[in-house]
Amino acid sequence: MIFLRNDYSEGAHPQILEAICKSNMEQTVGYGLDEHCFNAAKLIQSRIKREDADVHFFVGGTQTNFTSISAFLRPHEAVISSSRGHICVHETGAVEACGHKIVAMPTPDAKLKADQIDEAIEYHEDEHFVKPKMVYITNSTELGTMYTKAELQEIRKRCDKYGLYLYLDGARLASALTSSENDLTIEDIATLTDAFYIGGTKNGALFGEALVLSNPVLKPDFRYLLKQKGGMLAKGRLLGIQFEELFRDNLYFELGAHANNMADMLRNGLQSKGYPFFSDSFTNQLFPIFPNETAQFLAEHVSFENECKIDEKNRCIRFVTSWATTQEDIEKLLALL
Amino acid sequence: MIFLRNDYSEGAHPQILEAICKSNMEQTVGYGLDEHCFNAAKLIQSRIKREDADVHFFVGGTQTNFTSISAFLRPHEAVISSSRGHICVHETGAVEACGHKIVAMPTPDAKLKADQIDEAIEYHEDEHFVKPKMVYITNSTELGTMYTKAELQEIRKRCDKYGLYLYLDGARLASALTSSENDLTIEDIATLTDAFYIGGTKNGALFGEALVLSNPVLKPDFRYLLKQKGGMLAKGRLLGIQFEELFRDNLYFELGAHANNMADMLRNGLQSKGYPFFSDSFTNQLFPIFPNETAQFLAEHVSFENECKIDEKNRCIRFVTSWATTQEDIEKLLALL
Amino acid sequence: MIFLRNDYSEGAHPQILEAICKSNMEQTVGYGLDEHCFNAAKLIQSRIKREDADVHFFVGGTQTNFTSISAFLRPHEAVISSSRGHICVHETGAVEACGHKIVAMPTPDAKLKADQIDEAIEYHEDEHFVKPKMVYITNSTELGTMYTKAELQEIRKRCDKYGLYLYLDGARLASALTSSENDLTIEDIATLTDAFYIGGTKNGALFGEALVLSNPVLKPDFRYLLKQKGGMLAKGRLLGIQFEELFRDNLYFELGAHANNMADMLRNGLQSKGYPFFSDSFTNQLFPIFPNETAQFLAEHVSFENECKIDEKNRCIRFVTSWATTQEDIEKLLALL
Amino acid sequence: MIFLRNDYSEGAHPQILEAICKSNMEQTVGYGLDEHCFNAAKLIQSRIKREDADVHFFVGGTQTNFTSISAFLRPHEAVISSSRGHICVHETGAVEACGHKIVAMPTPDAKLKADQIDEAIEYHEDEHFVKPKMVYITNSTELGTMYTKAELQEIRKRCDKYGLYLYLDGARLASALTSSENDLTIEDIATLTDAFYIGGTKNGALFGEALVLSNPVLKPDFRYLLKQKGGMLAKGRLLGIQFEELFRDNLYFELGAHANNMADMLRNGLQSKGYPFFSDSFTNQLFPIFPNETAQFLAEHVSFENECKIDEKNRCIRFVTSWATTQEDIEKLLALL
Repeated sequence: MIFLRNDYSEGAHPQILEAICKSNMEQTVGYGLDEHCFNAAKLIQSRIKREDADVHFFVGGTQTNFTSISAFLRPHEAVISSSRGHICVHETGAVEACGHKIVAMPTPDAKLKADQIDEAIEYHEDEHFVKPKMVYITNSTELGTMYTKAELQEIRKRCDKYGLYLYLDGARLASALTSSENDLTIEDIATLTDAFYIGGTKNGALFGEALVLSNPVLKPDFRYLLKQKGGMLAKGRLLGIQFEELFRDNLYFELGAHANNMADMLRNGLQSKGYPFFSDSFTNQLFPIFPNETAQFLAEHVSFENECKIDEKNRCIRFVTSWATTQEDIEKLLALL
Repeated sequence: MIFLRNDYSEGAHPQILEAICKSNMEQTVGYGLDEHCFNAAKLIQSRIKREDADVHFFVGGTQTNFTSISAFLRPHEAVISSSRGHICVHETGAVEACGHKIVAMPTPDAKLKADQIDEAIEYHEDEHFVKPKMVYITNSTELGTMYTKAELQEIRKRCDKYGLYLYLDGARLASALTSSENDLTIEDIATLTDAFYIGGTKNGALFGEALVLSNPVLKPDFRYLLKQKGGMLAKGRLLGIQFEELFRDNLYFELGAHANNMADMLRNGLQSKGYPFFSDSFTNQLFPIFPNETAQFLAEHVSFENECKIDEKNRCIRFVTSWATTQEDIEKLLALL
Repeated sequence: MIFLRNDYSEGAHPQILEAICKSNMEQTVGYGLDEHCFNAAKLIQSRIKREDADVHFFVGGTQTNFTSISAFLRPHEAVISSSRGHICVHETGAVEACGHKIVAMPTPDAKLKADQIDEAIEYHEDEHFVKPKMVYITNSTELGTMYTKAELQEIRKRCDKYGLYLYLDGARLASALTSSENDLTIEDIATLTDAFYIGGTKNGALFGEALVLSNPVLKPDFRYLLKQKGGMLAKGRLLGIQFEELFRDNLYFELGAHANNMADMLRNGLQSKGYPFFSDSFTNQLFPIFPNETAQFLAEHVSFENECKIDEKNRCIRFVTSWATTQEDIEKLLALL
Repeated sequence: MIFLRNDYSEGAHPQILEAICKSNMEQTVGYGLDEHCFNAAKLIQSRIKREDADVHFFVGGTQTNFTSISAFLRPHEAVISSSRGHICVHETGAVEACGHKIVAMPTPDAKLKADQIDEAIEYHEDEHFVKPKMVYITNSTELGTMYTKAELQEIRKRCDKYGLYLYLDGARLASALTSSENDLTIEDIATLTDAFYIGGTKNGALFGEALVLSNPVLKPDFRYLLKQKGGMLAKGRLLGIQFEELFRDNLYFELGAHANNMADMLRNGLQSKGYPFFSDSFTNQLFPIFPNETAQFLAEHVSFENECKIDEKNRCIRFVTSWATTQEDIEKLLALL
């Protein structure tokens, strides 16, 4: 079985696992106050050129999202998001469970448009409505698409205009930043957002996301929220150790690039065989459209997820490549078609 | 100034106010455990032919909605509503503040369609999504439209099919049930829903809504929620006294009918002058479309709310009639055009 | 039956009811944006000598408390309160339902001691604990006791030292401020607290509490919270009208003084008959201790609440006087003993 | 430095780490739906002799506690706990952040007494109070003490009497069950509680807690809550793999026994030197009392936590042994005194 179901099907990249093993009997204080966490935070600050930013480590993305939103917003404040945003759809109402409405704007390509921020602001007239205070975007998005630098700058302008925080969910940031079509750097992201997270779980870590708080308004007491929402890991160093490996040299970006290379090969192969795509993805998630029988046949040999029905005869499926995907697997898959 | 801004612009219908005055020096226990509340509950039970139903009194509608939803749902459960539903739009995220997502289905006429329930259920596949557990509808709706008996029965069927509670927000129930186009009785509503509320604030009470719980599953410990969410009035008898007046004889329906008569007169007048309407309303809210300059001119003489822009030259405004609206006012308004 | 069960057994003081009746057919906008509310706010600002304070009107006290706490605190922040504080005990966990822990400090007389603030702060060491950010006190307290000016100043000092907001629940403020033993003015309270509310429900209003926000930090967006938490009354003017009556001249204080006079008479009578008291109350709640059989006998003639068991033979009960209590009733009661 | 600060100072027991490494390149579905999780659940079901119980895996204890409480209770329901209970003190108000009050009963030895359940129930009279619906206990407790079988049975009886769920926080269950003074089996615990969790983080796992739901009422939709509250790990198999190791043979109990042996040795040594203890602990947490200067001297050589001040001259500190503590370390420590 070729496994293209997701980018968290295996454990960790061997270098990361080795670091965990090597440090196993070290004795440290808990809760992320150890040297590994401090060092990993410094590596990240230095890589994003924001020595002043705060860095907090989480085990998973849902946790990171709702803890941040809960920390940033007052009870009547809301988040603007694409209607395909992960927080809108796939987190079992975690944001609402923390008390906040998500103002979902319909976006076929999963990218929030700057004009939709105007639209959302205008709609919420007075105190009978929630008050939008934050914009949530993902990069790469739930459909594998990416924001350009110009788009992100335009979104930033609207946020400034309306006094909104800009938060970027980087569960798949490595893939976005190493895509052939990308024109954003991680420094750009650190500059243009108020907060963003660097996803580890989907890019070779056993688990782990690094939240970066650039806007000083968002920093006070964040660790209280981290603890309250269940995100403070007892053996917090496990997160530090992993991000040390990812950011000591270039591993974080190398793993993203590998996933993209595998996706490029797959996309090119599928395109040359004439299959259309549901979204223009140049990252590690591809959304090809297949006739139903082809999809059924593939399912016998490949593990993947169904995205949606296209019409009576065709459906869209999702292939996800990762740091662990091999060229052999891609070739085998293409040979099936 | 002709006041058609809303149906809560005055105090109470004189008969209700008189009852409050007459009982003023009675000494009763607090929190809705007095004889007036018991008697009012009995009058309602008898009128809806559900002696087994529980009746709870609230001061306002937002309170009634979020307290009920909070009482009925577990944390991961969600409410399906028209995207124009009052809870979606005009309650400052009160439902989300209680932890629940609203699954908003776009409906141009503010009426949720039975098929949209199927759609919502199908979309929410597994535990990564919220779980729809309740359907919220308003009657009459935010656009003055109404559910037919057939429509309500069809919604009930879907609720039964999927194990959903059906809750009807009756802030303007009096107007709906006394509309010339209505084919539903209050008994039908008590039979077809699991819970609904009978709106007093917008139909001649100083304030007050009577929540009816028909489904026994929803009854236990409801008074705890009433207290916790701030809905338990110290001098609870004020609610009982008012609903005694409304339901002792037929006052509740007479007041609704009066509001509708005034709206009919206004609608007919506007139609005969050639003005189109944004929605097909036969209740006490009308949504005529006027050229911008006409709307501006009217605003000098009439107090009303803007609903929305139609195009560069026209806009939709809202007129609301009430138990207190006079024929003279309607005539004066029509004479302006 | 002599009714000393509580101070909200009747409707409204006749002057207040009359004002409601007189204004009944006035047409106003809703939600507290009418002239009566503006005028009432001005009367209060002027009476407390804080023209800069914001005033918001609520229907009831539980609502006022949880809405304020919810508006003032971030999710990890907590309220310090006497363990007998109304929010700790009698509000069905409304504060916790908004997400906040109450740090309850045991106080036999229901008065929080300034040193207990130190104690609470010291106990909460780091981010594994909640962070106390607010002090909640009631005046008069749940046991009828009162804060002296020196005590309130001392509490203020600790609040300043630790960066805590001071909030005073004035459900029975009228009784406190007109007590023979009181040395605080309403101006003192407005100066020494960050926020407090002036209770109307228990002092002659049909219902209503006026929240005063003195600290500018607490003001932004408060009306969003008022709406979200269900406290925004459609016919908001009802609150304005009542507080106009209470604060136009001196009615608020006269009603409190009357209740206290009745309590003084009752206390003196009981003392002269040798009955001890559970608390030193010089306000409108008295907590006499009776042998069980005396209490049982009284219950046949007087409506009151049981407070607690003292020992096998004696119990403490609560008598509450109000603006409506008559000298005849007190004399009758004393004659029974 | 001798490290007795806590039982999560190192990584994982080597056997567990090896299993993680060995399975690293396996490809599995995510979110705990893989074979390792199924197998681990079966091993636990079989070990506790409850094939019918549901088992869910979490990363940490705070998460397990608040997710369970949130899943089990309605908004007005509360948890009874010892005032030293972990949820009361060290979880930054996580339970309150989910909306529930903790009814904290003072207990010097951190063990909730059965009679305190009666007391809590009697105190909460009606709907103005929260409604206790669940009892939370820890075993071993925050002071290293343990429940006897008789005590647990008595607590169960009260829970049955009042319709309360009994939940046991087993963060340090391994140490409790292998203590020389223990008379409870894990089967007893599975029988006497409605839900409990088997702590891995503090007993040799890299991280992980296994929640056991015995009462069928608590099972429906639990995975929704697991996801919503951030507890659903993407690479869920990591939890399954670790609990397979802990429960395939007897590793879970062996590690607990080792920690206890080290604690026994330390306790005996301290006792023989005449140091008193703050609590009667026969588990892996010891609370010796030292003169301040002794404690200061020790702090230069041993890493530990301060528990509390005893008097001006003495203080209580906490030593925690673990699966990783060595006899050499204990000997070295004792040699210092």
